[in-house]
Amino acid sequence: MEKRYELDRYAAVYAMRTGSMVSSEVRDLLSVTERPDIISLAGGLPYTQIMNGEMISTLFAKVMREECAEALQYGPTDGLARLKKEIAGIMAAEGLEVHPEDVVITHGSQQGLELLSKIFINPGDVILTESPSYVGALNSFVSYQPRMEGVPLDGQGLDTDLLGKRLRALAVSGERPKFLYVVPNFHNPAGVTMSMERRKALLQLVREHELLLIEDNPYGLLRFEGESLPPLKSFEPESVVYLGTLSKILSAGMRLGWFVAPAPITEKLLLAKQSADLCTSSLTQRLAHAYFATQDWRGVIEKLVQIYRRRRNTMLEALEEFFPEGTSWTHPEGGFFVWAKLPEYVNTKDMLAAAIDQKVAYVPGMAFFPDRSGANHMRLNFSYPSEEQIWEGVRRLSLVIKRELKLARSLGLADRQGPPTDAERTEE
Amino acid sequence: MEKRYELDRYAAVYAMRTGSMVSSEVRDLLSVTERPDIISLAGGLPYTQIMNGEMISTLFAKVMREECAEALQYGPTDGLARLKKEIAGIMAAEGLEVHPEDVVITHGSQQGLELLSKIFINPGDVILTESPSYVGALNSFVSYQPRMEGVPLDGQGLDTDLLGKRLRALAVSGERPKFLYVVPNFHNPAGVTMSMERRKALLQLVREHELLLIEDNPYGLLRFEGESLPPLKSFEPESVVYLGTLSKILSAGMRLGWFVAPAPITEKLLLAKQSADLCTSSLTQRLAHAYFATQDWRGVIEKLVQIYRRRRNTMLEALEEFFPEGTSWTHPEGGFFVWAKLPEYVNTKDMLAAAIDQKVAYVPGMAFFPDRSGANHMRLNFSYPSEEQIWEGVRRLSLVIKRELKLARSLGLADRQGPPTDAERTEE
Repeated sequence: MEKRYELDRYAAVYAMRTGSMVSSEVRDLLSVTERPDIISLAGGLPYTQIMNGEMISTLFAKVMREECAEALQYGPTDGLARLKKEIAGIMAAEGLEVHPEDVVITHGSQQGLELLSKIFINPGDVILTESPSYVGALNSFVSYQPRMEGVPLDGQGLDTDLLGKRLRALAVSGERPKFLYVVPNFHNPAGVTMSMERRKALLQLVREHELLLIEDNPYGLLRFEGESLPPLKSFEPESVVYLGTLSKILSAGMRLGWFVAPAPITEKLLLAKQSADLCTSSLTQRLAHAYFATQDWRGVIEKLVQIYRRRRNTMLEALEEFFPEGTSWTHPEGGFFVWAKLPEYVNTKDMLAAAIDQKVAYVPGMAFFPDRSGANHMRLNFSYPSEEQIWEGVRRLSLVIKRELKLARSLGLADRQGPPTDAERTEE
Repeated sequence: MEKRYELDRYAAVYAMRTGSMVSSEVRDLLSVTERPDIISLAGGLPYTQIMNGEMISTLFAKVMREECAEALQYGPTDGLARLKKEIAGIMAAEGLEVHPEDVVITHGSQQGLELLSKIFINPGDVILTESPSYVGALNSFVSYQPRMEGVPLDGQGLDTDLLGKRLRALAVSGERPKFLYVVPNFHNPAGVTMSMERRKALLQLVREHELLLIEDNPYGLLRFEGESLPPLKSFEPESVVYLGTLSKILSAGMRLGWFVAPAPITEKLLLAKQSADLCTSSLTQRLAHAYFATQDWRGVIEKLVQIYRRRRNTMLEALEEFFPEGTSWTHPEGGFFVWAKLPEYVNTKDMLAAAIDQKVAYVPGMAFFPDRSGANHMRLNFSYPSEEQIWEGVRRLSLVIKRELKLARSLGLADRQGPPTDAERTEE
């Protein structure tokens, strides 16, 4: 019986190795973190509580009065023209001038990632990502069976020296990466922002190697401090597919994202979108248009920034206060996440059960690495939990980590380099 | 420069051959049919004008009052539990008992088709469809590069004798079709309904050949006359993936569909859905739930059925009145479409420009055939245009056809079998 539903032999292997493992991790976590006694630093949710439901109802009622039949009807595959105009305005706030007609609206920016994967990736193709990278992107990519290569990040973002070396080595072996995927601002999961110097170095490599960039910028407007840096697409529009989303500045539940791509890519993406879902919701697009056209959306973003900044501050203070020696973490200038590093011999996936016993959750680092390395990292979210929860959550987590470190010392693991072997782990 | 964005070599070839051709046909048509002077019988739009916008606004306001933050937030990949319950109720009205937890909500049923294509089709795999078949399904399938084989329909639906022969021939050659895709009720584009006898014969073949069925039922509740026939899934639940949609009974603009599949398939589809878009809109799902939970949705369907029945009657009367000898058409018991057949030497794609000159549009038959045959057919929509438009549209169309037939007679094409050769066509 099983055989008749036989799936792609490659896909099945990959799903076992990576896709479904990541997914089930995330799903199991989400199911646990719905328990009210657990403080979840695992999620990646925007704080939608600040939105004014009455205002949204008023906008909705106006859409229904003026164009009910159209809002309930199919719409164009590329999206509602007047929402594209508003999105061009949002992109201008990000530092990017685009023609509204070049914007294509998607069912969340996750759909943009899926469509790009579908049109670009043949099994075995090389694609490049940051390492670590956004798990949702990795899931889309891996489902089309590329050979994924990760290029490490540091505090300044993508390590462009290593990228250069990698690109030259690929060129020598006659391989051409289909694209490089980057999240330049307030990286998920790493929390870092690509510096101006690195942006310039990256763009130099893009020109040299005729590399296609996918620039994913979900958090760009959520900057807590420092100067905004120009999007990569503003330097090299013909080499960059830009992905944006309303999930972090209006609503994730509306499922509205967009991409702006070079014209020949847009054409292929539109065909792929038509197969994927015919069109994005006419209803949510009209509602979003009404919001951006009539409301002080910049003021709402400022309010979000204030809340998120305080929560980030609380998280950084709590980490300083509670986390033991031998741990470190990033200091994000915006976005949703702090990325913490524990001693190399700690496996944060194995430690998760103990954390949940202590009623705190995080996402283990391994999920974010294309090669499943990075087992000693963890992603901590500060956008959704309250300041009190963040403080208490980090405190609980520190107890779990301290116990883990103590155990490791007593087993002699702490004295040497490298993670424990499987045998050692079983002995534990 | 072009080369750097090189797409999948197979996909590009297929897109040129089939996918993008169909798409651009449909897109060009849609762009033309927006002109107010053109009567479009080309669309496939539900008549959303009957929905009560004030009622929907009231439902929306309640959702915002009671759970604004949740409605604006990410939701579970499989959908909102309470909407699944309502969908189980809709399926009960279709004659199918399912557990709500087995329902997975998608971004339109088109997304279900895309996800099925993604998890099942490897390049070169054999898949079976009716011939003609729904163009949106064909587009999704072809984008994963199967070998598509069409099995003809007649007035009783799928020709199960021919299907049986084809399945036996495939078995002999050791090939196993991944699935058979069918639209049993009020077929798009053919307008026919699979008879009870054919359903039984099909299910017998399904059992014999361990064939997986994809049963797409967008129009099932829109029956104008006669007895409802039980869904295929009700006989063989473990062999059928059922696809449903709210597009035809509530709103296409909400983009809400669903599937119910055997458990191992559901698991893979959920992983694919997670990569595709994380989740369906929390907002539109809550709104749809509020509608089905509190409104007389059966009464609204009854109203739609009355409108569509009158429009179908008008179309059949107009065809009887105006269409010339040598043409024939189906008599749909429900749904959106009449399927008309012209003499074999007429190519409805070539004739379209003349029709648009006469200010009437249809969809050429070729778009609906997996092998691009069927050039002498056309799909006529009666769900969206008014009765007056239908009458006048069919009249205009008949003039175009009569002129085409006259021309063919004068060229001697009408006296022999088969379509004209390319040389002959150029001579015209």
